[in-house]
Amino acid sequence: MNKSKVLPGSVIFPKGEKAAPANFIGTAWAEVLVADDSTFHCPVFNVTFEPGARNNWHKHPGGQILLVTGGKGYYQEEGKKAQVLREGDIIKIPPHVKHWHGAAADSWLAHIAIIPNANKGAPEWLEPVTDEEYNNL
Amino acid sequence: MNKSKVLPGSVIFPKGEKAAPANFIGTAWAEVLVADDSTFHCPVFNVTFEPGARNNWHKHPGGQILLVTGGKGYYQEEGKKAQVLREGDIIKIPPHVKHWHGAAADSWLAHIAIIPNANKGAPEWLEPVTDEEYNNL
Repeated sequence: MNKSKVLPGSVIFPKGEKAAPANFIGTAWAEVLVADDSTFHCPVFNVTFEPGARNNWHKHPGGQILLVTGGKGYYQEEGKKAQVLREGDIIKIPPHVKHWHGAAADSWLAHIAIIPNANKGAPEWLEPVTDEEYNNL
Repeated sequence: MNKSKVLPGSVIFPKGEKAAPANFIGTAWAEVLVADDSTFHCPVFNVTFEPGARNNWHKHPGGQILLVTGGKGYYQEEGKKAQVLREGDIIKIPPHVKHWHGAAADSWLAHIAIIPNANKGAPEWLEPVTDEEYNNL
């Protein structure tokens, strides 16, 4: 096992459980900080990606806000260049915009994910970010 | 100047500007991480309290979520005992519940404040948390 790939924890909040493999390449972890409910409609997650891990392309009907708490990674919207994510970065993902996010090849990434207006619908999960796409960022 | 009271920064996100003195006892700082808008209706702030600082009693028509990122402080709902806040704590404040939050007397406190459903109305600011209340927690 490559020790540099070991991720002992996350940042401030728990690492949680392994994220659904169907929607990720590599290993990511998610902790529910605030469960969805009928008052707030605003679930909040702590998401931690191991190096090279990223979620599939997807869309949020109500949009999403990312608060990057540590490590290094990428955020990319369809048709645009990927942008580097670092501690303290804030990303606002408009409703229905196709995108993905994840760690850099040589670093873990941790972010808080806020999903306002979750009552507008569940995320729409699409195809994976292929190694070819990822390796050519 | 008491050096232990100096607060050089915040946690991960910027400390921002001094919060409106009308709504606080002591000095608190707020950075707008996500401005309110007509799509998300979900402004997000980084709030940092100097030791002894706390906001006035207040209510949020759409509720509020606090993610504690560092230090030590208190959260209290009207008619209930104050609860201690520490790094990693999550607080869900239901709509229209009268409450306050702030630092401990001997520690700064930093939290992220998420205000979902901000279109339900502006916060309703009420009376200060008096020294008598605060010193008898």
